[in-house]
Amino acid sequence: MSIPNIKHALPVTRQKDFAAWYQAVISEGDLAEESGVRGCMVIRPWGYGIWERIQKLMDARIKAAGVENCYFPLFIPLSFFEKEADHVDGFAKEMAVVTHHRLKAIDGKLQPDPDSKLEEPLVVRPTSETVIGQAMSRWVQSWRDLPLTVNQWANVVRWEMRTRMFLRTSEFLWQEGHTAHVDEADARKETMRALEMYRDFAETELAMPVIAGEKPENERFPGAVATYSIEAMMQDGKALQAGTSHYLGTGFAEAANIRYQDAEGQQQFAHTTSWGTSTRMIGGVIMVHGDDDGLRCPPMIAPWQVVIVPMLRDNPEDEAVLAYCAELAKALGDVDVFREPLRVLLDRKPIKAANKRWSWVKKGAPIIVEVGGRDVAGGNVSVLRRDRLYNDAGKLASEILPKDDFIARAAETLKDIQATLHADAKSRLEANIRRDVTDKAALVAAFEGDKPGWVEVEWARPSGAALDAVEEWLKGEKLTLRNTPLDAAPATGTCIFTGETAVERVIVGRSY
Amino acid sequence: MSIPNIKHALPVTRQKDFAAWYQAVISEGDLAEESGVRGCMVIRPWGYGIWERIQKLMDARIKAAGVENCYFPLFIPLSFFEKEADHVDGFAKEMAVVTHHRLKAIDGKLQPDPDSKLEEPLVVRPTSETVIGQAMSRWVQSWRDLPLTVNQWANVVRWEMRTRMFLRTSEFLWQEGHTAHVDEADARKETMRALEMYRDFAETELAMPVIAGEKPENERFPGAVATYSIEAMMQDGKALQAGTSHYLGTGFAEAANIRYQDAEGQQQFAHTTSWGTSTRMIGGVIMVHGDDDGLRCPPMIAPWQVVIVPMLRDNPEDEAVLAYCAELAKALGDVDVFREPLRVLLDRKPIKAANKRWSWVKKGAPIIVEVGGRDVAGGNVSVLRRDRLYNDAGKLASEILPKDDFIARAAETLKDIQATLHADAKSRLEANIRRDVTDKAALVAAFEGDKPGWVEVEWARPSGAALDAVEEWLKGEKLTLRNTPLDAAPATGTCIFTGETAVERVIVGRSY
Repeated sequence: MSIPNIKHALPVTRQKDFAAWYQAVISEGDLAEESGVRGCMVIRPWGYGIWERIQKLMDARIKAAGVENCYFPLFIPLSFFEKEADHVDGFAKEMAVVTHHRLKAIDGKLQPDPDSKLEEPLVVRPTSETVIGQAMSRWVQSWRDLPLTVNQWANVVRWEMRTRMFLRTSEFLWQEGHTAHVDEADARKETMRALEMYRDFAETELAMPVIAGEKPENERFPGAVATYSIEAMMQDGKALQAGTSHYLGTGFAEAANIRYQDAEGQQQFAHTTSWGTSTRMIGGVIMVHGDDDGLRCPPMIAPWQVVIVPMLRDNPEDEAVLAYCAELAKALGDVDVFREPLRVLLDRKPIKAANKRWSWVKKGAPIIVEVGGRDVAGGNVSVLRRDRLYNDAGKLASEILPKDDFIARAAETLKDIQATLHADAKSRLEANIRRDVTDKAALVAAFEGDKPGWVEVEWARPSGAALDAVEEWLKGEKLTLRNTPLDAAPATGTCIFTGETAVERVIVGRSY
Repeated sequence: MSIPNIKHALPVTRQKDFAAWYQAVISEGDLAEESGVRGCMVIRPWGYGIWERIQKLMDARIKAAGVENCYFPLFIPLSFFEKEADHVDGFAKEMAVVTHHRLKAIDGKLQPDPDSKLEEPLVVRPTSETVIGQAMSRWVQSWRDLPLTVNQWANVVRWEMRTRMFLRTSEFLWQEGHTAHVDEADARKETMRALEMYRDFAETELAMPVIAGEKPENERFPGAVATYSIEAMMQDGKALQAGTSHYLGTGFAEAANIRYQDAEGQQQFAHTTSWGTSTRMIGGVIMVHGDDDGLRCPPMIAPWQVVIVPMLRDNPEDEAVLAYCAELAKALGDVDVFREPLRVLLDRKPIKAANKRWSWVKKGAPIIVEVGGRDVAGGNVSVLRRDRLYNDAGKLASEILPKDDFIARAAETLKDIQATLHADAKSRLEANIRRDVTDKAALVAAFEGDKPGWVEVEWARPSGAALDAVEEWLKGEKLTLRNTPLDAAPATGTCIFTGETAVERVIVGRSY
């Protein structure tokens, strides 16, 4: 994992303390910070810049699928929420509730004005099925109105007791797609389309390999008939659920009265789906691609793909260095990469060049270009690729290149960095999934000594109390069921948990 | 205003009932609708598409000014909010307050769980000076950290008693810029930069002429030292405040402890600013550009700039019509306009072509192109410009053009529509500002019989009780002070309200 004898830029390595390392990447890379408001973070410019990139690229995929963006209310009246029993059970324990609409000084202390108490409390949306269902019930009349497909980019709130930046915060940012269909087949097709969109987005844009599959019934979204997820493996071997897609059956349609007249003139309930991804993905990117010097940001989602650091010496030569850098920035800005103009920053901040370099290393800018007087004289640039920071001797692997060569190859280099990050993560994922475990003792042993990774086992897909028993036993071992991979090999043996004939394969692992 | 003897697409004209007409544009144009949640609207795809365009173009201007996007918490602890006395006084009466974090069924009824009562209530942000100030106090140490300039795109909540879609809703979407500076001069410069950015954005992107000026002291943002606004004139002659920029002095910096060490090693409080624009601008666009057939959307912010409507007859010819339309769409998509690819939609929805045409008229698509079998045969298209829907004879002013000519001129035509909408609104604004009123009786008379428009008068810029008296008198006449235009002529006479020597000119009008 780490090269010996290198003093890394972070105060702690992955190997020493993965959790502390994660926090260090976030704080040293200026990604986010605690806000002083319980469970809520401040997303700083570099972290928010990554989110803007994710938004832009995911939004393009959502629009390409013909889904239209809308905006629905932040507040959900309790009565909307109560209509779907499983749904409300699943969320009631972690919701922010608005009860008053005014403050007043009472005994010199500002507090909710009792005279402003709401007749019906409002829930701050933890997810929007209920309020979007109400709108759909107005919009859907006939089979001609279906499928109805909408998405919103929004903040949601779930009152989490233990929070971790990006991974689990009380407030987070996400997109939620909501669709209504004439029948189960069409709704299930949309559920799988969204799942595949997320899988491909994770692999392509985030360079983050994932396993797409169905969640066991106990892990379904509250009120869903089926929940699918993409699961990514972090460098400590734990699983992160990075996106979900739900087939909701007709339960939410019945609760919100989303009905349509079919071609035969009969009233039918629509079948609905929902699917979402969030700022949690940024936590995944950090834990998949980060190293002991900070984040390594995949070029497709890096706010700046190339950062130019002029090496100034407070002497007359500086002007020529800056002019050379400006010219370089302009030429790079005209380069196209991943079908967009290359994003280049000339960093003019008045701090020392070495500090500047290390701040961009920690942030994970894919390419850092340093330019000093000698480079200007020789028509060169000094190029540092963030994906291979050190050479085998443990020295910074800066490469001196003719400026024009670097410009000509910049797009290729960025594509290569994107591909390298993906390939590295993909081999790690594949190397750390065991598929040879056939009994519970071996399953426990597979995780002994905090051995990283997942185990894919055959099971009989138990349900109800039988599944509860499996999960109870796994919990005792600090293990969880992740999903049943869509592309797993067929089951041929017996269920590792129940001894019955196995019907499919399921992934077991520790998780975030 | 209206052409006689035309049956317009909306059920009510501007002249007959401007307020009802406004609601009709919104509902018939599928822009937004009531949500069933008090004071909150659902923004539908066409309305949200306009907001996405506004976001994209405004965000580009904000980034070009070097301001970085961040994200700050939705919730503000009461203690943060209380620190700035004027600020809390200004907002305390209209805030949503979160008091519990869990629901529980009590006597069979779901309600806030008393055991989940928060020790400190949380306010849903009505604006973010306080929570961003807390972050700035962590980020600012030295004069080298200044100016610090951030922006966020977010939802905010102000508990409005009387709401109107887009213009005044309990929840709305906006951007809020927040900056900290070494001194008053630099902060005031930023305040004016943001104001000028808004003025130019309104004129250019929204084609909406505005008057930029300072708000009278009673109309300042709570806690501000100076507030500036852009004011647009709606077609009923009322004023809409469409953006504001505030110089906040050191009050917020003192409350949040935003201090820096200056070059001499002394601790100083920063001078801060804030500035914002919101979904309210969409209400302005409707009331400035709409006509009796619906919205006329300026091409720069239209989600689709050209909509192609194939005229199908359920016969074999349809295939050739659709192929011709697809080819047209492809060619238009390759056209650049306003430095972006032209946004073109081929509307394949299975509804009658005439209904389709009118739905796009009501939405305000700048150019609607109809294509039938005869057009295909002749290599033509039938073009309808939304800014001039009817000819002098009161017939739809569709123009048959050779397809290639239309494509070659499409960018120019869109630019001409943008310019025409601006020019129309600009002449209306100029024609409806009177500057010849010098006494209160004439001021009242100027508004008699609901005569539309504003009056710019000379005044002595009274303060405190004297200003209260002026505003009290104006309120009795249903009038308000809008702003003191930056580019007004100098005052030469006496104050229309107090008879003192006038120092500047101020705009008086009815308002939203």
